[in-house]
Amino acid sequence: MPRAITAFSNPLVKQVRDLRDKRHRREQGRFLAEGLRILTEAREAGRLPEIVFFGRESAGHPLAEALVAEVEAAGGEAIETTADILAKLSGKDNPQTVLGVFAEFPTALEALDRSRSPIWLVAERLRDPGNLGTILRTGDAVGAGGLILIDECVDPFSVEAVRASMGALFTVPVAQARWAEFLPWLRAGPGQLVGLSLDTATDYRSARYEAPTFLLTGNEAQGLPADYAAECDLRVKIPMLGKADSLNAAVATAVMAYEVLAQRRIA
Amino acid sequence: MPRAITAFSNPLVKQVRDLRDKRHRREQGRFLAEGLRILTEAREAGRLPEIVFFGRESAGHPLAEALVAEVEAAGGEAIETTADILAKLSGKDNPQTVLGVFAEFPTALEALDRSRSPIWLVAERLRDPGNLGTILRTGDAVGAGGLILIDECVDPFSVEAVRASMGALFTVPVAQARWAEFLPWLRAGPGQLVGLSLDTATDYRSARYEAPTFLLTGNEAQGLPADYAAECDLRVKIPMLGKADSLNAAVATAVMAYEVLAQRRIA
Repeated sequence: MPRAITAFSNPLVKQVRDLRDKRHRREQGRFLAEGLRILTEAREAGRLPEIVFFGRESAGHPLAEALVAEVEAAGGEAIETTADILAKLSGKDNPQTVLGVFAEFPTALEALDRSRSPIWLVAERLRDPGNLGTILRTGDAVGAGGLILIDECVDPFSVEAVRASMGALFTVPVAQARWAEFLPWLRAGPGQLVGLSLDTATDYRSARYEAPTFLLTGNEAQGLPADYAAECDLRVKIPMLGKADSLNAAVATAVMAYEVLAQRRIA
Repeated sequence: MPRAITAFSNPLVKQVRDLRDKRHRREQGRFLAEGLRILTEAREAGRLPEIVFFGRESAGHPLAEALVAEVEAAGGEAIETTADILAKLSGKDNPQTVLGVFAEFPTALEALDRSRSPIWLVAERLRDPGNLGTILRTGDAVGAGGLILIDECVDPFSVEAVRASMGALFTVPVAQARWAEFLPWLRAGPGQLVGLSLDTATDYRSARYEAPTFLLTGNEAQGLPADYAAECDLRVKIPMLGKADSLNAAVATAVMAYEVLAQRRIA
């Protein structure tokens, strides 16, 4: 049976509210996902929250009821609460009516199985949580084996990244590694490292991609460091006809990933 | 000579601060763009702000100095101000050190010249300012003739859209129209209307695009209304191999636009 929390002073409210902050996520080993749509994606991917909060408005919704029942059956906690407390937890005036608290996933490189897919996404010093989430969503769509985050990237468990992923955080494996760890891991098996670069004459449409392809996108403002680009098996560029000198990082990753996918589908 | 504003009570501070709000943008017919990079893009595209605010830190920067000189030469106003006032104007703790106040551009459909480009972007009920800005940035990169916003879209002059566009708002024409205005305008000249849809078997890579191509992307959550999709000359879908049922709207637009561009480059 769900229990009810109606008091702001309940210590769990503060504890969950704190998950909007990276330090608290690391301390608690947990993160927050908002919205019935994303939580349903998670459930269908076999990921249940430890705690699910829901408001009265969602109480009769079949997907919300299924979620609550599964969380409780798995030994988790379901908590009915007020719109005010949901707003406090989510930091928004118009909060989603369902929130889940999940245990963070392990993100070690070693957990990845490169035979899982011919396409992998790799992002270096990605700073924007919206871009990270959008890249995960693209990764889901192209059937990527996972997203590997290199060096200091934004936290994939941030509320903004989870939201922008539209649930893909639960379906696309994420790893975090330093470049100095990633490169030996990559070279220990098959894999073509393809760097998106401005300093090349090779058009991304004329290049030929070998499976598994690891698509490497650099930092939003600075692109790839030259020494990282130099380690790539192939450097390609996306043509740009306008005044700007770069595309949004999530857009560039998607244009590349769909080209690789198209070549796989024809091959 | 730049004048200095150091008092929060200066009425211009409130007036410019108000431009973060859509209603005030419409009343004043002006909008705000932040950052030397974006303002330099604007300047290079021949768009100068009516007012430029700059902090002491940027005073010696050659691009900032060039901007200030050109604004003053064009009869605009240059104002040196404090970090605190810049933070107030931008609504951020770490504000950009240069801010510009621009006159809004006209966005009538009739101002577009369809012979200008073989690729046009059309977005219907786009809600997210980040997506709008990102689509403009992609539009710049593919050489799009413009972005046409259909029905109730987010404001292209919002601070978030301008920021995400990275200056492309100043290089890519934007029009706003109701569907009932857009369709007769489109049909009055050459143009293939291509709708991105889930309800079609036509893969976006196997379709053939005719110039000028008008790429129509629907609302982030709901996609295109069925009756809008029915008016398209061609409906295409982007394959999705994962659990999710859609891509981010800016990503989908970019994947499509780069396919059209690739066909143009080969043709």
